[in-house]
Amino acid sequence: MFLETVRSEGLSHLSYLLGDESAGVCTVIDPRRDIEIYSDIAKTHDVRISHILETHVHEDFVSGSRELSAQTGATIYAGESNQRTFEHEAVKDGDTIQVGNLSLQAFHTPGHTPEHVCYRVSGGKGAKAPWGVFTGDTLFCGDIGRTDLLGAEQAEGMTRQLYHSLFDKLLPLGDELEIYPAHGKGSPCGGDIGDRLTSTLGYERRHNPKLQIDKEDEFVKNELGSLQPAPFYYSHLKDVNTHGPRVLACVPPIPMLDPHVFQIEMGKPDTVVLDTREIEAFGGGHIQGALNIALREEFPVWAGWMLKPDQRILLVLAEEDDLETVQRHLLRTGFEKNDGYLGKGMRGWFEAGLPFERISELSVHQLKRWIDSDWTDLQVLDVRSPAEWQQGHIPGALHLYAPFLQDHLHSFDRTKPIVTYCGSGYRASIAASMLKRGGFKEVYNIPGSMKAWRAAGYPLE
Amino acid sequence: MFLETVRSEGLSHLSYLLGDESAGVCTVIDPRRDIEIYSDIAKTHDVRISHILETHVHEDFVSGSRELSAQTGATIYAGESNQRTFEHEAVKDGDTIQVGNLSLQAFHTPGHTPEHVCYRVSGGKGAKAPWGVFTGDTLFCGDIGRTDLLGAEQAEGMTRQLYHSLFDKLLPLGDELEIYPAHGKGSPCGGDIGDRLTSTLGYERRHNPKLQIDKEDEFVKNELGSLQPAPFYYSHLKDVNTHGPRVLACVPPIPMLDPHVFQIEMGKPDTVVLDTREIEAFGGGHIQGALNIALREEFPVWAGWMLKPDQRILLVLAEEDDLETVQRHLLRTGFEKNDGYLGKGMRGWFEAGLPFERISELSVHQLKRWIDSDWTDLQVLDVRSPAEWQQGHIPGALHLYAPFLQDHLHSFDRTKPIVTYCGSGYRASIAASMLKRGGFKEVYNIPGSMKAWRAAGYPLE
Amino acid sequence: MFLETVRSEGLSHLSYLLGDESAGVCTVIDPRRDIEIYSDIAKTHDVRISHILETHVHEDFVSGSRELSAQTGATIYAGESNQRTFEHEAVKDGDTIQVGNLSLQAFHTPGHTPEHVCYRVSGGKGAKAPWGVFTGDTLFCGDIGRTDLLGAEQAEGMTRQLYHSLFDKLLPLGDELEIYPAHGKGSPCGGDIGDRLTSTLGYERRHNPKLQIDKEDEFVKNELGSLQPAPFYYSHLKDVNTHGPRVLACVPPIPMLDPHVFQIEMGKPDTVVLDTREIEAFGGGHIQGALNIALREEFPVWAGWMLKPDQRILLVLAEEDDLETVQRHLLRTGFEKNDGYLGKGMRGWFEAGLPFERISELSVHQLKRWIDSDWTDLQVLDVRSPAEWQQGHIPGALHLYAPFLQDHLHSFDRTKPIVTYCGSGYRASIAASMLKRGGFKEVYNIPGSMKAWRAAGYPLE
Amino acid sequence: MFLETVRSEGLSHLSYLLGDESAGVCTVIDPRRDIEIYSDIAKTHDVRISHILETHVHEDFVSGSRELSAQTGATIYAGESNQRTFEHEAVKDGDTIQVGNLSLQAFHTPGHTPEHVCYRVSGGKGAKAPWGVFTGDTLFCGDIGRTDLLGAEQAEGMTRQLYHSLFDKLLPLGDELEIYPAHGKGSPCGGDIGDRLTSTLGYERRHNPKLQIDKEDEFVKNELGSLQPAPFYYSHLKDVNTHGPRVLACVPPIPMLDPHVFQIEMGKPDTVVLDTREIEAFGGGHIQGALNIALREEFPVWAGWMLKPDQRILLVLAEEDDLETVQRHLLRTGFEKNDGYLGKGMRGWFEAGLPFERISELSVHQLKRWIDSDWTDLQVLDVRSPAEWQQGHIPGALHLYAPFLQDHLHSFDRTKPIVTYCGSGYRASIAASMLKRGGFKEVYNIPGSMKAWRAAGYPLE
Repeated sequence: MFLETVRSEGLSHLSYLLGDESAGVCTVIDPRRDIEIYSDIAKTHDVRISHILETHVHEDFVSGSRELSAQTGATIYAGESNQRTFEHEAVKDGDTIQVGNLSLQAFHTPGHTPEHVCYRVSGGKGAKAPWGVFTGDTLFCGDIGRTDLLGAEQAEGMTRQLYHSLFDKLLPLGDELEIYPAHGKGSPCGGDIGDRLTSTLGYERRHNPKLQIDKEDEFVKNELGSLQPAPFYYSHLKDVNTHGPRVLACVPPIPMLDPHVFQIEMGKPDTVVLDTREIEAFGGGHIQGALNIALREEFPVWAGWMLKPDQRILLVLAEEDDLETVQRHLLRTGFEKNDGYLGKGMRGWFEAGLPFERISELSVHQLKRWIDSDWTDLQVLDVRSPAEWQQGHIPGALHLYAPFLQDHLHSFDRTKPIVTYCGSGYRASIAASMLKRGGFKEVYNIPGSMKAWRAAGYPLE
Repeated sequence: MFLETVRSEGLSHLSYLLGDESAGVCTVIDPRRDIEIYSDIAKTHDVRISHILETHVHEDFVSGSRELSAQTGATIYAGESNQRTFEHEAVKDGDTIQVGNLSLQAFHTPGHTPEHVCYRVSGGKGAKAPWGVFTGDTLFCGDIGRTDLLGAEQAEGMTRQLYHSLFDKLLPLGDELEIYPAHGKGSPCGGDIGDRLTSTLGYERRHNPKLQIDKEDEFVKNELGSLQPAPFYYSHLKDVNTHGPRVLACVPPIPMLDPHVFQIEMGKPDTVVLDTREIEAFGGGHIQGALNIALREEFPVWAGWMLKPDQRILLVLAEEDDLETVQRHLLRTGFEKNDGYLGKGMRGWFEAGLPFERISELSVHQLKRWIDSDWTDLQVLDVRSPAEWQQGHIPGALHLYAPFLQDHLHSFDRTKPIVTYCGSGYRASIAASMLKRGGFKEVYNIPGSMKAWRAAGYPLE
Repeated sequence: MFLETVRSEGLSHLSYLLGDESAGVCTVIDPRRDIEIYSDIAKTHDVRISHILETHVHEDFVSGSRELSAQTGATIYAGESNQRTFEHEAVKDGDTIQVGNLSLQAFHTPGHTPEHVCYRVSGGKGAKAPWGVFTGDTLFCGDIGRTDLLGAEQAEGMTRQLYHSLFDKLLPLGDELEIYPAHGKGSPCGGDIGDRLTSTLGYERRHNPKLQIDKEDEFVKNELGSLQPAPFYYSHLKDVNTHGPRVLACVPPIPMLDPHVFQIEMGKPDTVVLDTREIEAFGGGHIQGALNIALREEFPVWAGWMLKPDQRILLVLAEEDDLETVQRHLLRTGFEKNDGYLGKGMRGWFEAGLPFERISELSVHQLKRWIDSDWTDLQVLDVRSPAEWQQGHIPGALHLYAPFLQDHLHSFDRTKPIVTYCGSGYRASIAASMLKRGGFKEVYNIPGSMKAWRAAGYPLE
Repeated sequence: MFLETVRSEGLSHLSYLLGDESAGVCTVIDPRRDIEIYSDIAKTHDVRISHILETHVHEDFVSGSRELSAQTGATIYAGESNQRTFEHEAVKDGDTIQVGNLSLQAFHTPGHTPEHVCYRVSGGKGAKAPWGVFTGDTLFCGDIGRTDLLGAEQAEGMTRQLYHSLFDKLLPLGDELEIYPAHGKGSPCGGDIGDRLTSTLGYERRHNPKLQIDKEDEFVKNELGSLQPAPFYYSHLKDVNTHGPRVLACVPPIPMLDPHVFQIEMGKPDTVVLDTREIEAFGGGHIQGALNIALREEFPVWAGWMLKPDQRILLVLAEEDDLETVQRHLLRTGFEKNDGYLGKGMRGWFEAGLPFERISELSVHQLKRWIDSDWTDLQVLDVRSPAEWQQGHIPGALHLYAPFLQDHLHSFDRTKPIVTYCGSGYRASIAASMLKRGGFKEVYNIPGSMKAWRAAGYPLE
């Protein structure tokens, strides 16, 4: 028996291969769309992928189940639902799926989604008794799955279902069971998931803050009160995954465009220039109108927040080697119209003598001095989430969560200087790029942002 | 916080990196000798290696602690012992080591070795309470550490100590804690370790066969009765690790030798030709006197059984790309005199017109027919461990565990045909190569061995 | 300007990227079918592939022009021919193709094929004057292109054309020009190509043995007299390349089959088991009826000789990592029905208890002793090419070139021992596997073969 | 026989492996200091490195001959010189070195250096006659070696020697010979080397501009008049290579420093902060006093110009993956005191709340507008080489070649705005970083620089 975890950084997504070498078979649980890694791992264990298990209809990444099934012929198993429209084997509460000598028993655990199932696993040498649960988005390390993805009006009902799934179904399975969730720290599918990748039912029962409230009404109230906004692309991907994403088979390379061709392509309708360089490089010189989402770990989630599914995307990269990673992230999150990237990057653009713009980076010390002097004219904009804002912000700052900025540009004064900040400067640079695109004349970003502000010991409000 | 597991295949060794990104530091627990992997992982998390923790003096691999400390300047921590002669920080029962915001509390758990400590860990986002234990060779998934490595006369005392370490120290820490042992399936440091890489104290308390016996005397009796032979190189490596292995800094490449030079080098004293090709390739044609230990996962353990620490080793490889892996395995197990490898492999040898020998591979069907006909002359030798032998063998076979063959060649008749078999043909080929070297005229190996015999449905005794 | 050479080992095929970084474009000359390497190289130079040039209709590998054009949109240029049926730009003698600042002027050089063109190149910094010629299969380093591929009756006419192409078109271009041929040493497209990858017109004019004969009739007579047999797959690939090979876009992975499934698949019609392990491993134990073509450099040519285009192929590999290379070689030479490979290799087969066969490897010393003693019964078969045979062979040996063996098995006595040899044992093992499959009872192979025989100082005939 | 070229980008250095597979040996010609690549290539050809040939004492990179000899035991061959102080075999005019079946005949060709030798090669299948010359720094594609490296007073004498080496020794060897020089395009060891990596004696004789002047006095006058400044590190490396560089064996990893430790280390004497990010990222935010040499191809040459051999170097990288490349470049050019790099890069610095500076990037359009309006206050500084300056510059600009800026900061007005430009913005950013460090208040860089200026169609002077 072997169990391997595949981490998809950025989405904090965890998928699993669980196999029986003696029988020569394995299953993949909650695969992502770029599936080579599963075949590669299966090969190192000399097994073929015979089963694919879904815990639920994912909202935050394009499911790889159909892709993987098309390549391997493996059967897809998923919780019973009358909405799913692609071929699969429906799994009911109590069903057992046999993968060689391994048994996976399904537990219907609605709450995050209506058809969600968890799989309890037993089998392998020295492990006849059940030893683990694949908890999908029902139970995370230190948190639980969000319950508002069917819409606000259904959130209470879903939360009540989740309460029973957790307390009546999962926790009774035994303190000694390990849990294998579908997400780790940073995923917006949970509120505030912890650092660990696995945990145990006993540990969560005793220490998960959400499970310390064991009265249903209180549990529901607490949960509904703590929900943070969900990325805009979630509802689109729920549709995609319900009806089965397009099978790619192989991904066509994104064409390199020379600066002049790039400039022409930029002018076509529904096109966005996406600049994935670091924030200070973007600040130092960028193409007019470009959106800056730097290629850090949080890239895919912020791409999901800021891009539209049908938009044509033209890329500006720090270096050509980033292309594969960026394309991979975009395909995982369902953005398929990747129509070109700028050859030789900004260097090519500069050397072609084409115009560019700048956003000045301010240090927190410069900002502090500015605030201390002529505060009146200056707009300081905090673009962090409501929860972060509430934990303390720069005195006198305005607040608007970055994703909502596009629809509220009119709330600020285009003619006066505006400074954006967030936790580290990353989202602030996204926001700054949108303000610049929106015609704001004097835009500043604060690299380091609140981390730097706190490190400098400046006051909070 | 992050926790990464490094698996060293072959030795079934598990080492760990545990780090705190916010503080920029991490610790490595029980590092192996080829340490680049730890630096590489640390780099991906943007931390430096600040601490090195040993659970005990290892016997089955050369510890990498000194190597890693020499490269990084990190301090080595290890359980108090008056035998260790290299620089380290001695750890007492109850001591806590702080790695950024992570706490590692030491529990003295003698039994496998006298100075063994386990480390209980707490810390990280959502994980203030203790959540795991690095159990070293005290507790494995489905088994416990062997207690006879100080010699037979001390085994009972050590087993009693282990009993108390397990029942009085480890198990009371809580069912919900995950365990991170130093070995997985296949390591001779445990009796019969299970498939899983991690488990929980609760699972082991309820399902580990060795922990189902909670009366001390019975526990001791059972344990002493189940011990299997330990590889010969263990005692040598215990010395090496007690006094601190030589720091390599960088490993000199093994020179390629052309066939004629190889032939001359072979003739020098204390030299072994080690042929790491698959068994049927070895059988098809090999250099006279060569020892066949094929480069499968079990290679390092069998190298440890069959080679002597001060022997000069000359290599015959299936392909040049195997060189790095073979050298890595040999260095991990303390074999440093790797004086050359045969250029162009056996092909070079063949084309130089040099003489070679063969060992015929027999199928189980051929063996069965032979046994059924003229059994009288034929010696069928089972070279598996005593435990395997007892679970059933080919009727009429002789038994001698492969490692003991070298000293008992005289027990068999050199002039009559001899057939070797084991579980899969791997150890049988080692034995066959030793018999051939020992002057046996007609030696056969059985690829597939007991697996094939059982698959064919032939009778067992 | 840059010029990069892509070598396809095995086929000794040379293709080229020639580009102009300042203009951002490049051309590929005579691309192979697996085209990623061209895109990768183009990317490192920050150019796109804008042109594809064919020197002629290749016979020895599937052209990658259509594949590359489908991926990049580049135009295919090729010598005028009324047979080609896929889209391309026809090139006439004297035409110039402009790739950025580089000029490629076409010279019609019939002989190897009727529509063959060479391209003379000029351009790049410090290189305004023409500096090189892409000579395709017209002129190699130390040899010239074969002229019999349209069939024996046209060979004389083609040779006369080649004479004029060489002496009247190419050589007059100037001694100082470098030549970039489509093949290096070992390709059956030339007779006996030299070691160098490039040369100069002057060097070839002065030292190429074929060009030392400057009288047409003598040249023709010499050339026709020196022709060696061409691999069987050549005529098939000429058709494929004339009508345009299928565009693959992406290659489906070859499925892993477990031994029992493999055994069933073997039984289906038109199926060959292709064992790519080294010869002594094949000899040590192989599946009945398997064909041994070891994965050395000469693999693709021998696959071309021994396999049929429409045969289903089942693979036995030395290790799983060989799969990609083997598949690549098979696709390059037009074998597309790769229906599976044996999971865990022969080890899996052995452990499943399935039957296998052996071919004994004899050393040349054993062979010599045998010949010296009871020569009468023994058949010694030399399977080298006629040219090699004429340069000396083992006294008393029979001769038949390996590719012709399949149709002449009846020429030998199935009931008597037969020993095969070649230059190194490689082709001898192919032949031995065919004899074994053909029902010969006692088959031996000589690893090292003539190299070993000569090294041992034994007499030749 | 095989010939492989190893390109060291940045230094435009070409070294060669030339080997004879049948004899199992090869030679490396003019190896660089990081030598793994030679061993790796030798391995793929199944040969060992038996000979090392130096054409001359290199000035632009640390020779790898001693390193390679220490690892392989190969003998070093080099032209006779009474200055070299490490062990080698002295080669005289006419000597022949035999590497298996290959012959390398030495021709003493003084001019670039006094002891320079070229090696004419013959041997290999189909290549008995000499077919190539390793020309070192005597003859390049489209140019010849510079003659002023012993100092201005000896330049004339050296040039006369070079004249005779070229016209009396090399060219007479025959038009059909290929040449393999030690440098390609971009190396300051030649004046203006062409794009091709190889050429022929005939091509150079007919088209190399320097060889069109066949009268000695005219040749000397032309050559002395065209010399460009040589990088400052050349004289240091000539010493290093004359006395034999230190053998590294293995390179210690550069430690990661957290921002606060980095800040402390910066303050120590003789320390430079070297920031290798792209110019606009540097402009967007950098550590005060940092020197910007971006990690483009020209990095090593500019490191050689701007750094001092004994300086402690602290690195700021675009990403951690650049570390190995940067270290490799620095070691090749003899900078060994690489004492640390900034953990998490500038992001770590920003988040620690530490102060930073900016340099504004101006587009050529902004510069043009500025020049057109209030030219009086503005200093526009062209930092290109004298030769580039003479081919046209921005009207009204000042000129000082970047390397000389450090000693001439006082020539400009610290209180007035200063704009730097070069060919592409690369050297301009180096210069801008030096001006900023030198206390200039208002510094601008022009990304794209002259390329952009020309592309925009603005006037030149």
